[in-house]
Amino acid sequence: MDFPTWAAPRRAAFDAYLEDRFLDAWPTSFASPLRYALFGGGKRFRPLMVFAAYEALADQPDDLSPALPLAAAIELVHTYSLVHDDLPSMDDDDERRGRPTLHKKWDEAMAILVGDALLTEAFLLVTEAPLSDHICRDVTRRLSGAAGYRGMVGGQVADIQWSQSDWGMDELLRLHAMKTGALITFAAEAGALAAGATDDQVNTLSAIGKAVGLAFQLADDVLDEEEDAGAEGPPSFLKFRDRTTTLNHAQEVISGAIEQAATLPRPDALVGLAQFCISRSH
Amino acid sequence: MDFPTWAAPRRAAFDAYLEDRFLDAWPTSFASPLRYALFGGGKRFRPLMVFAAYEALADQPDDLSPALPLAAAIELVHTYSLVHDDLPSMDDDDERRGRPTLHKKWDEAMAILVGDALLTEAFLLVTEAPLSDHICRDVTRRLSGAAGYRGMVGGQVADIQWSQSDWGMDELLRLHAMKTGALITFAAEAGALAAGATDDQVNTLSAIGKAVGLAFQLADDVLDEEEDAGAEGPPSFLKFRDRTTTLNHAQEVISGAIEQAATLPRPDALVGLAQFCISRSH
Repeated sequence: MDFPTWAAPRRAAFDAYLEDRFLDAWPTSFASPLRYALFGGGKRFRPLMVFAAYEALADQPDDLSPALPLAAAIELVHTYSLVHDDLPSMDDDDERRGRPTLHKKWDEAMAILVGDALLTEAFLLVTEAPLSDHICRDVTRRLSGAAGYRGMVGGQVADIQWSQSDWGMDELLRLHAMKTGALITFAAEAGALAAGATDDQVNTLSAIGKAVGLAFQLADDVLDEEEDAGAEGPPSFLKFRDRTTTLNHAQEVISGAIEQAATLPRPDALVGLAQFCISRSH
Repeated sequence: MDFPTWAAPRRAAFDAYLEDRFLDAWPTSFASPLRYALFGGGKRFRPLMVFAAYEALADQPDDLSPALPLAAAIELVHTYSLVHDDLPSMDDDDERRGRPTLHKKWDEAMAILVGDALLTEAFLLVTEAPLSDHICRDVTRRLSGAAGYRGMVGGQVADIQWSQSDWGMDELLRLHAMKTGALITFAAEAGALAAGATDDQVNTLSAIGKAVGLAFQLADDVLDEEEDAGAEGPPSFLKFRDRTTTLNHAQEVISGAIEQAATLPRPDALVGLAQFCISRSH
């Protein structure tokens, strides 16, 4: 089964799980921007990573119920980060995926509050997963670490400071490992934890997630190559390596991840996802 | 012992607990705004509510260690909400407690990211409390509910929409119960949960917290009375009731809370805190 064929029904199950969310908001008008942010045509890449990791290890891989709340929590965190990053004081983007960004369709205050609400709700979702209290606590701890100042938010701060810094490849790797890598890595760990994985298995999935996160970013930088790559541009691997070297590096990283995945009981979806995330740039 | 005498050493223990937080931030410069927000001369009212509730029920009331991480989590959530509320697109405040607001001292992007980081770290702190996995999960669930769209964030949305709405007393009560009441109520619940309270005791503390939250807001509105109370002003009980009626209402609500507190093993600190929160306006 190729990756898009595997992904389609899981993406549908994921959207169905989220469907009723936020309908009980008050003021009632608050539900619209919350749902606008959440149902904006995203690829659901991080939820699919949760499902792929879960299926690699779960005894009952067809029962997604332990993985769905964790996948939703991660998507809410990812979504809030996009809403805040689009704000005028950050990336100042007017459009995302062909629609006005939230602060253009509503206003800045609403965009800030929608982001805050999505982030907060993510931690509620974790508590609703049909998992043991112990796993729930571990997942909460890891999610906060991946999303907060040691992870995604810290990476965004580094991104903003990039143009005024004389940082090199080490800092770029660190920036990307925090800004995008940490949440993708956590998605792989969360899938493993939902499947009741051993510590060793969680560590394997963590390494696979880290590799996919890095390859994802390398591929992104190559895709963005046509855009201005001058000193004022965003942090990019193409500032330090040429296109071919960058693509080869992504390929190596993904090959390593696939080797590790092969040691797991049911690796097909993970392998498909790993190949897919660099195929975009070839 | 009067309330300030009780509060001082607990406030000091609280600040000592938070002292090392965020020093490991990267970029290293990110630590300064995070700590600027957190150590800004706040009254620590919500942490003190956690401690008062904890001491009312705990077998070892002098050992604050189970309550400290929860108190810190609540203070981080409260602090993030102030940083975001001060932003130009929200209340547009240049000063807070005699210092420049975070977006004035740094910039708007930094204020948004500091708020995001504080909110995220709050959930990590909950997982670090020396409490059972089961209690930790319950605390996480309640914190998310109190802080998110069903609580504080939803209340802030209502606050922003207040001036364009023809809402009455019912909506004002709902707005305040969400915007300030939910987190204060949760602080009382969290103290009880840290003390290993029974469900009945948690419900009693929840009712006391709700009463204190309402009285706190009634007193605030009276204190703010000198400010413009026209149609454009902030949501206030003084739009619907006069000063004396509002103060009498606050007094009644607090008397009810004190009666409930009297049923608990060690109610003194709770009673002192309840009286303190309306004494400000007399």
